[in-house]
Amino acid sequence: MAVHLGSVPIKLGVLSESDHMSVASINLFVALLCACIVIGHLLEENRWMNESITALLIGLGTGVIILLTTKGKSSHLRVFSEELFFIYLLPPIIFNAGFQVKKKRFFRNFMTIMLFGAVGTLISFIIISLGAIGIIKKMDIGVLEIGDYLAVGAIFSATDSVCTLQVLSQDETPLLYSLVFGEGVVNDATSIVLFNAIQNFDLGNIDAVTVLKFVANFFSLFFTSTFLGAFAGLFSAYIIKKLYFGRHSTDREVAIMILMAYLSYMLAELLDLSGILTVFFCGIVMSHYTWHNVTESSRVTTTHAFATSSFIAEIFLFLYVGMDALDIEKWKVASNSPGKSVAVSSILLGMVLIGRAAFVFPLSFLSNLSKKSPNEKITFKQQVVIWWAGLMRGAVSIALAYNKFARPGHTQLRGNAIMITSTITVVLFNTVQGSQHVIRASKF
Amino acid sequence: MAVHLGSVPIKLGVLSESDHMSVASINLFVALLCACIVIGHLLEENRWMNESITALLIGLGTGVIILLTTKGKSSHLRVFSEELFFIYLLPPIIFNAGFQVKKKRFFRNFMTIMLFGAVGTLISFIIISLGAIGIIKKMDIGVLEIGDYLAVGAIFSATDSVCTLQVLSQDETPLLYSLVFGEGVVNDATSIVLFNAIQNFDLGNIDAVTVLKFVANFFSLFFTSTFLGAFAGLFSAYIIKKLYFGRHSTDREVAIMILMAYLSYMLAELLDLSGILTVFFCGIVMSHYTWHNVTESSRVTTTHAFATSSFIAEIFLFLYVGMDALDIEKWKVASNSPGKSVAVSSILLGMVLIGRAAFVFPLSFLSNLSKKSPNEKITFKQQVVIWWAGLMRGAVSIALAYNKFARPGHTQLRGNAIMITSTITVVLFNTVQGSQHVIRASKF
Repeated sequence: MAVHLGSVPIKLGVLSESDHMSVASINLFVALLCACIVIGHLLEENRWMNESITALLIGLGTGVIILLTTKGKSSHLRVFSEELFFIYLLPPIIFNAGFQVKKKRFFRNFMTIMLFGAVGTLISFIIISLGAIGIIKKMDIGVLEIGDYLAVGAIFSATDSVCTLQVLSQDETPLLYSLVFGEGVVNDATSIVLFNAIQNFDLGNIDAVTVLKFVANFFSLFFTSTFLGAFAGLFSAYIIKKLYFGRHSTDREVAIMILMAYLSYMLAELLDLSGILTVFFCGIVMSHYTWHNVTESSRVTTTHAFATSSFIAEIFLFLYVGMDALDIEKWKVASNSPGKSVAVSSILLGMVLIGRAAFVFPLSFLSNLSKKSPNEKITFKQQVVIWWAGLMRGAVSIALAYNKFARPGHTQLRGNAIMITSTITVVLFNTVQGSQHVIRASKF
Repeated sequence: MAVHLGSVPIKLGVLSESDHMSVASINLFVALLCACIVIGHLLEENRWMNESITALLIGLGTGVIILLTTKGKSSHLRVFSEELFFIYLLPPIIFNAGFQVKKKRFFRNFMTIMLFGAVGTLISFIIISLGAIGIIKKMDIGVLEIGDYLAVGAIFSATDSVCTLQVLSQDETPLLYSLVFGEGVVNDATSIVLFNAIQNFDLGNIDAVTVLKFVANFFSLFFTSTFLGAFAGLFSAYIIKKLYFGRHSTDREVAIMILMAYLSYMLAELLDLSGILTVFFCGIVMSHYTWHNVTESSRVTTTHAFATSSFIAEIFLFLYVGMDALDIEKWKVASNSPGKSVAVSSILLGMVLIGRAAFVFPLSFLSNLSKKSPNEKITFKQQVVIWWAGLMRGAVSIALAYNKFARPGHTQLRGNAIMITSTITVVLFNTVQGSQHVIRASKF
C-alpha cells in the first residue's frame, strides 16, 4: 500500500486536470512572448527586424513545429478568437496610441486625417470591391455572392494601425506618423462600419436617399463615439480632481484611469458605436487633462504601464496571427486549387496597391491646396511613404475575414477557404515586406 | 426602401451579436469596480468599511437586483469560475504581496511562519475534519462520504490572505502583518495540497509509512516551488542586467518582469507545484535583485503597477464572491431544510474558531521559547489578533468548495448544496465581522 501511495500523484497545483491543456498553452504563449522581447531587443541594431516581425516569425515557426509534432493534425493552440482580439488586445493598443500621440500635431492635421481616413477608405473600398467583382468573380473559385465581394472590399480597406506604429517613429518623422497613424484609427472605424453596413444591406435597393441616410447615420455615430471618449476622459479627470485620490493612493488613481478607459471602450461597443474611436479620444483627453491632476508617481506609472500593456498586446497579437496562419483545414481546402489561390492573393495585393494610390495622391493634392505654408504641405516623397505605410493589412483584416468567411464549418467551402488563405497571405506579405520599405523610405 | 433602410441597424461596433451578453456583463463589472473604488475612498474615514467589504456588499446588492429583475431565475452574471480565479486574479495579488513584503522581518520570523502555516494548518485540518465527522455526520443532511468531511476540513483550513492584507497594516503593525500574512501564503499552499491529497487518497489504507512518504513528498514539492520562484526572479535579474534593457526601453523591462513572474506561476501549476508559493518567492527575489537593476522610472512603474493590478484583482474578487453568493439554485435546495443549514454553518464556524485556537496559542508558546529578546516574543494580545485575523475565510475556500461540491448538477444533492451554502455563509460572516475586530484589535 505504501508503495502504491508512493506513486499517488500528490500535487500542490490548484488547477484541475481539465485546465491543464490551457495552462500548457498559456505557458507556451508567455514563454514565447519573453523570447520575442529578448530576441527583438538583440536584433534591434538590425533595421530589418523589430518585435512585430520577430513575433510573426516566431509564431509561424511555432506553428510549423506544432504541425510537425502533431503530424499535421493541428497547427494552432487556439483558434483566432475575435473576442480575445477585440475585447482584450485592441483596447490597450489604441488607448495607448491616443495617450502618447502628439496632440498639437494631430489636431493641426485633423482635416487631412479625416479626409484620408473616411473619404480615402471609401474610395479604396469601392475600387477593391469593383476589382474583386470584375476579376475574381470570373475565376470560378466557388459560390460567392455580391455581398461577399463587397465584404472583401471592406476587409482589405482596413489598414493596420498597430503595425504602422511599430515602423514609423513619432520623433523622427512626426508629420508622417501623425498622418498615417491618425488615418489608421479613423480608417479602422470606417472599414468596420462599412463591413457591418454591407451585412445588413439590401443590395437590390440602393438609391440616393438611402446612401445619404447611410452617410448621415455614419457621421452621427462617428461623433457620438468621439464624444463618449472625450466625456469618459473628462469624467475621470473630474473624479480624480474632486475626490483627490492622491491624498492616499497612487494605486487608486491609476486603477480609476485604467478602468474608466476600458469602460468607455466597452460602453461604446455595447451601444454599437466605435470602441476604437472612443478609446482613442479617451486616451487623448486623459493625457491632456487627467494626467495633470494626478501625483508625480501616478504620471510615471501611467505613462509606462500603458505603454507596456500596449507593447505586450502588440507582440501577443503578431505571435497569435503568426501561429494561426498555418491552420491546416483552410489550407487543405484551398490547396485543391493552388493556382487560383495564388492568383486571388496576387490580384488582391494589386487591388490594395491601386486602391490606396487612388486616394493618397489626389487627396494629398487637395489637402496641399488648403495649406499656405510650404512646410505644411505633403511632399511627393512623403506621399509615397504614406502610400506604402498604409499598405499593411493586419489583425483587423484577419478578424473581419474570419467573421465573414470562417463561421464554423464554412471553410469547407472552397470560395471561403480561398478568401481566408488569401487574406492571411496578403497580411503576411504586406507586413513583412511593407514594413522594411517604410523603415528605409522614412529615413530621408 | 429608404424608409426601410432608415431603420437598418447600422453600427460601428466590432463585436457580433453573440458577444453582446458578455460585453454587457463586462460593462457592469467594470462600472461596479469603479463604484467600489470611489465609494471605498469616500468611506475611508469610516474604520468599519474598506474596499473589500464595499465590494462584497455592492456585489450582494447587485445580486439582489439581478435576482429581482429576472424574477428569481438568475442571480449572477457568471458562475464562479475556478479558472478565472486561479489563472488571472490570484497571481497578481500574491505576487504583489511578495514584492511589497518587508523582507527583513519576513525572514527573521521565517520559522514561526512555517510553523503556523504548515503545522498549524495541519492541526486545524484535523480538528475541523474530526468535528465535521463527529457532529455533522450525525445530522443526516444527505449522502456525504468520509472523503467529503476531510475535504471540509481542508476547505475551512484555508485562511484568506487577501482579506488579511486589507485589514492589517504593514506599517502600523509590522510583526503581526508579516506573521499573519506569511502564514496565509504558506497556509494556502498547505490546505490546497491537503485538499488534493484527499482526493487521491485511498482512505482505507493508511499507515505510518504512508504518512511519512506523504510528508516527505509534500516538503520536496514545497521546496521545489520555492526554488522555482527564486530561480525565476534571479533569471529575470540576470536577463535585465546582461542585456541592459534600460538602454532603450523602460517598457521592455517592465514587460519582462511581469511576464517572467506570470510564467513562474503558470510553470509551477503545469508541474503540479504550488504556484502561490512560487510566485510569492518570485516577488520577493524580484524586489530584492531585479528591481535594483532597472531604470528609475521602471522602479516607480513596477511598484505602482503591481500594486494597482493587485488592488483591482482584489476588488474584483470580492465583487465576484458577493455576486455569486446568491446563486439561486443552491439556496433553493438547501432551504428545503433551513434549520439544518443554519446548524451546519454555526457548527463549522465554531470548529474554525476552535481549530485555529488549538494551534495559535500552543505554537506561539513554542515560538516564544526559541526567542531570547522579549521584544521578539509574541504577546498574548498579539496572539489573540493572530487568532482573529486568521479566522477569515475567502476565495480559496470558496474555490475549493466549488471544486468539491459544485460539479455540474451536483448541487441538486442536498448534502452538497448545504455544504456550498454553508461555505458562503461562513465566508461572508467571517469577512465582514472578523475584519472589524481585527481593525480595532490591531490598534493597541
